[in-house]
Amino acid sequence: MNFISDNLAGATAPVMRAMATANDGFSAAYGNDGWTRRVEALFAELFERQVAVFLVTTGTAANSLALASLVQPWGAVLCHHEAHIAADECGAPEFFTGGAKIVGLPGDGCKLAPEVVTDQLARMRAGATHQVQPQMLSITQATECGLVYVPAEIAALKQAIAPRGLKLHMDGARFANAVAALGCTPAELTWKAGVDVLSFGGTKNGAFAAEAVIVFDPADASEMPWRRKRAGHTLSKGRLIGAQFEGLLADGHWLDLARHANAMASRLAAAITTAGRLRLAWACEANEVFVVLPPRAQAALAEQDVQYIAWSDGALTAGQELRHGEVVGRFVCSFATQAVDVDRLAAVLAAS
Amino acid sequence: MNFISDNLAGATAPVMRAMATANDGFSAAYGNDGWTRRVEALFAELFERQVAVFLVTTGTAANSLALASLVQPWGAVLCHHEAHIAADECGAPEFFTGGAKIVGLPGDGCKLAPEVVTDQLARMRAGATHQVQPQMLSITQATECGLVYVPAEIAALKQAIAPRGLKLHMDGARFANAVAALGCTPAELTWKAGVDVLSFGGTKNGAFAAEAVIVFDPADASEMPWRRKRAGHTLSKGRLIGAQFEGLLADGHWLDLARHANAMASRLAAAITTAGRLRLAWACEANEVFVVLPPRAQAALAEQDVQYIAWSDGALTAGQELRHGEVVGRFVCSFATQAVDVDRLAAVLAAS
Amino acid sequence: MNFISDNLAGATAPVMRAMATANDGFSAAYGNDGWTRRVEALFAELFERQVAVFLVTTGTAANSLALASLVQPWGAVLCHHEAHIAADECGAPEFFTGGAKIVGLPGDGCKLAPEVVTDQLARMRAGATHQVQPQMLSITQATECGLVYVPAEIAALKQAIAPRGLKLHMDGARFANAVAALGCTPAELTWKAGVDVLSFGGTKNGAFAAEAVIVFDPADASEMPWRRKRAGHTLSKGRLIGAQFEGLLADGHWLDLARHANAMASRLAAAITTAGRLRLAWACEANEVFVVLPPRAQAALAEQDVQYIAWSDGALTAGQELRHGEVVGRFVCSFATQAVDVDRLAAVLAAS
Amino acid sequence: MNFISDNLAGATAPVMRAMATANDGFSAAYGNDGWTRRVEALFAELFERQVAVFLVTTGTAANSLALASLVQPWGAVLCHHEAHIAADECGAPEFFTGGAKIVGLPGDGCKLAPEVVTDQLARMRAGATHQVQPQMLSITQATECGLVYVPAEIAALKQAIAPRGLKLHMDGARFANAVAALGCTPAELTWKAGVDVLSFGGTKNGAFAAEAVIVFDPADASEMPWRRKRAGHTLSKGRLIGAQFEGLLADGHWLDLARHANAMASRLAAAITTAGRLRLAWACEANEVFVVLPPRAQAALAEQDVQYIAWSDGALTAGQELRHGEVVGRFVCSFATQAVDVDRLAAVLAAS
Repeated sequence: MNFISDNLAGATAPVMRAMATANDGFSAAYGNDGWTRRVEALFAELFERQVAVFLVTTGTAANSLALASLVQPWGAVLCHHEAHIAADECGAPEFFTGGAKIVGLPGDGCKLAPEVVTDQLARMRAGATHQVQPQMLSITQATECGLVYVPAEIAALKQAIAPRGLKLHMDGARFANAVAALGCTPAELTWKAGVDVLSFGGTKNGAFAAEAVIVFDPADASEMPWRRKRAGHTLSKGRLIGAQFEGLLADGHWLDLARHANAMASRLAAAITTAGRLRLAWACEANEVFVVLPPRAQAALAEQDVQYIAWSDGALTAGQELRHGEVVGRFVCSFATQAVDVDRLAAVLAAS
Repeated sequence: MNFISDNLAGATAPVMRAMATANDGFSAAYGNDGWTRRVEALFAELFERQVAVFLVTTGTAANSLALASLVQPWGAVLCHHEAHIAADECGAPEFFTGGAKIVGLPGDGCKLAPEVVTDQLARMRAGATHQVQPQMLSITQATECGLVYVPAEIAALKQAIAPRGLKLHMDGARFANAVAALGCTPAELTWKAGVDVLSFGGTKNGAFAAEAVIVFDPADASEMPWRRKRAGHTLSKGRLIGAQFEGLLADGHWLDLARHANAMASRLAAAITTAGRLRLAWACEANEVFVVLPPRAQAALAEQDVQYIAWSDGALTAGQELRHGEVVGRFVCSFATQAVDVDRLAAVLAAS
Repeated sequence: MNFISDNLAGATAPVMRAMATANDGFSAAYGNDGWTRRVEALFAELFERQVAVFLVTTGTAANSLALASLVQPWGAVLCHHEAHIAADECGAPEFFTGGAKIVGLPGDGCKLAPEVVTDQLARMRAGATHQVQPQMLSITQATECGLVYVPAEIAALKQAIAPRGLKLHMDGARFANAVAALGCTPAELTWKAGVDVLSFGGTKNGAFAAEAVIVFDPADASEMPWRRKRAGHTLSKGRLIGAQFEGLLADGHWLDLARHANAMASRLAAAITTAGRLRLAWACEANEVFVVLPPRAQAALAEQDVQYIAWSDGALTAGQELRHGEVVGRFVCSFATQAVDVDRLAAVLAAS
Repeated sequence: MNFISDNLAGATAPVMRAMATANDGFSAAYGNDGWTRRVEALFAELFERQVAVFLVTTGTAANSLALASLVQPWGAVLCHHEAHIAADECGAPEFFTGGAKIVGLPGDGCKLAPEVVTDQLARMRAGATHQVQPQMLSITQATECGLVYVPAEIAALKQAIAPRGLKLHMDGARFANAVAALGCTPAELTWKAGVDVLSFGGTKNGAFAAEAVIVFDPADASEMPWRRKRAGHTLSKGRLIGAQFEGLLADGHWLDLARHANAMASRLAAAITTAGRLRLAWACEANEVFVVLPPRAQAALAEQDVQYIAWSDGALTAGQELRHGEVVGRFVCSFATQAVDVDRLAAVLAAS
């Protein structure tokens, strides 16, 4: 059983069909094709406003391009210290921005609180030339610990940065899971709450390799075509990505997939809570379950060949620290996760 | 009829099937999967030696990563002034290398001669700290004007740079067409002739988005995993690229495709020559035909809605300059080009 | 009275004389001059071994060049989170390295402990391509809080990083003060304790604008000439910097200057301790005194127009936190500080 | 006799005195001092308008900062192919700009003609994302071959770039010599003719290490403070540079120095012309004389130990190519060049 990540399954059947259809015949290259145009229109509809859309194949590219377009080399991006852009992209944001600084902040479950942001900003003097200047706040939705920000929380963060003019970026590698979990609209969860630019993830949610940078104010997107091209992220057969998104966005397929993944995670979390033997590291709010695993549970999982990742304990709430021998196990559910496997996993844990 | 480029058709049926097969089930992410491993073995077999292989989705990424791994920020890359890396990648090589200099040299049909390289090197003082230091020579096979280098020509270029220790890079966006045209082995055309690193193109030859950086001395590849990751080019579902190459490389499919494209180009060139009304800008040696088009031919093509590109005349042989109103028309054939369309195009040109 | 920093006074008379002497006649440009050669020899003598020396005009340049020469773009530099390279150089290290990551660690008085370094390294997986790789540890001598590392402490840090192969950089903007304070040799305080590269400060210690990057293993210096030139830090009249160092290093002038500065700081610290009304934030070990100033002391200083800086409290020892209204006042002594001013300052503080 | 360059002599007596005066007492650091403020006012007066001024120590830094502030990483800077920024700064412009492209154009004597610029621009498609975008034209005044642009020529170049919105940069390492030669005002030679940003050279004209970036529209200067700091070019004892410029600009000292250098060069050129044995490579219009030296002249110079540089022949006028054995000898005069040496040199050449 594989709960390592939501990027280990392939693409869904509708996505595969969309790609196969797009494959026929000749089409203009470099994103000047019908699929890309249609996807742009679909995103405009989804977000209930004009948006600038840039399709790429990886989340690292999406995040880094979003940052680089709005942060200068002497700028700073505030984020959680375990944010993907800070901890898992091998310095891609620094590469794309020309050396901007990623400033990591604390927060339980990788969520940032407005006070933490405000405090950090107070320590960064506006206009000082000896220090980098804060220019962006980046939050992850759902977070690296599987929590979600509700619109009011996002708006509060925007309010915290507004006096200093920072832009708000949302790393939405699991945006679909957050939308599905909260039941609000994509617009409510983004620009209506103050998000300026969104990395809209498709890959973890049933695409092969499809991510979109959604820029809500087209004026913020003026540099993107050149930045994307010179990063080698403008695909000649760009309809490849467009078709994947067309497959995802048609008929709410993307939300169905996310709802399923979330439901599987809830099912697992509920089973663990009911069993009462293990505690969750953080609440299960999207498609991931983080379980504090004592040695006996680790052994049981190994014996049953359950694949998962031992996650960082750096964002645990104070007072919830790990005891000797414990690890945080991350179990990720995706569109491809089956209930029978969840139940088997729950049984393994309950019996451990 | 569309002769604009060989990246306008989709993927071939075997490539699509390979992707569909790879799509099933779970697989390790980030290139740690069976498809990627098998493709590495296939390339080792193809090149008759151990190689380090890095799969990416675009030629710009492949070229830029190859350059950046072997050229320092104060290095210079010699190439033809109309080479793709110099003229069509929006400064990607400069971005990836941290600001190295791309030094453009002249050469008929975008081919470089050893004397030109030797002369240029003589003008760049070794060890001088006021000038960038030449560290790589990059050639394109087949060239941007559709010509091919035979192994002896490559070896002569290697000999020209050997005293100064430059590495030899081959931009093989159309490597398959060159191999097919020359009938020699991939090994003869690369490392046996002195090539250190090759961008092996798949996209223009029937893949969706698949390019491979082939590093012949693994010691030259030590930086690549980090450079690729921080450029956002390490796909989580990396088997996507692996599967495309598996489809291409199986049973010589890649060479069959290239042979077809070359044959279509030869057919067109032969028809033009036979008709005797128009002159070729450069010999047709691979899958592209460059025709000097007087106004009447341009008008005829427009009337018949033939799609092609008006190409640069910057690499014409001395004495072959364009006359008033003429343009160089580029007609590219691909695996998807059909003989009936070639014949129709030839007829349009013959009648113009 | 001005205690803001040790870079507010000009150059000493011997330094000025050395510059005036160097000014006469013609001399080869770009560091190919006798002054530069002699200074290289003086440094070799001072450090009791062959060294590679690169003269520049600012500490930011010295630090950034030292880092960039030994850290790759996907590398990480560990240092205290309030280190000058992390907090006061506007991202220069990121700029020069091509986007490496500066990882800030905690430590009382800006000193790093080996355990802290070891713990951090344990969290950074060797060879992982999703994370930057630790390649350098940078310590400041004396620290930003005026503390010094003894050779054994430096050696212990080197031991902590040795298993992972990190290089050890010392930011010696106040290296002279540390040498003077400890009474050990420059060699004992650097390469004998494991330092690989040193930013040897001259500016704060009586020069106009003179810093030297001292590379103890010449093999580590191979990139420096190009990195310095392309950063615009290779002065045409390079003897300007050479002459300043010749003035500083002759007859132990540099140590006399540092001893004076240290003595003035000690005098101030002793007076404060004797008075018993105020507490020091950190021990006075070099040429800086950090005093916890209650509001009444702040008012007294303002009234007497004493110039100083309110310093960060981020490196205070646990349990020593500031109380309401308190600030940490930094009082820096230099070669130009006079005892009468120190005594007046002490009196102001004692009377507050 | 040393005619290698105008950066081999030290500083003039007035400059040295100004530095000595600035040396006394304490002063605010990082350019927040009276000398810097006064120099800013002096430049405003000199240029008859408000200007933003940034002092640095090298021409490479001045040029690179000027370029980086106004050119994006995917931008191109047009200049002569032998311009200092293209050929002698080891890729500093690429480093500072984050990888912009320096596009070298031809021109006799390193002067650019408007038609050449217009033609080049016609080859660079506006808005194309596969190619870098032209954003700046950089000219050198006086040129690397010692020629000067009159205001009308500068205005014509500005007119050539205006439709595409490029900024105009002037590398004024020898700006003083050009002003002295032309007898027009600094304003006429810069912003009144369309120059947007000027690297105003002091070092070659009697300073130790003093260059100023003069930005005529302060809006163009918004990035400079951060770019300068993170490049390590914000000196703590910034009054060092300010004082040098105060010394230079007082009482027209800078122009007196330049007039002397120019007069020495004219004297040499006139003697050579009168002797009639040797031909000049380019007219002597400022402080440099370029002489075509046959082997016998080279031998005579070597015998008399005359120091000069064999210069590139890459910008010779068509039809003036070197004959076998000839080299272009560059003889540079500075404020420190003496008539007696010029006459001796002329005699050596006349007798050869």
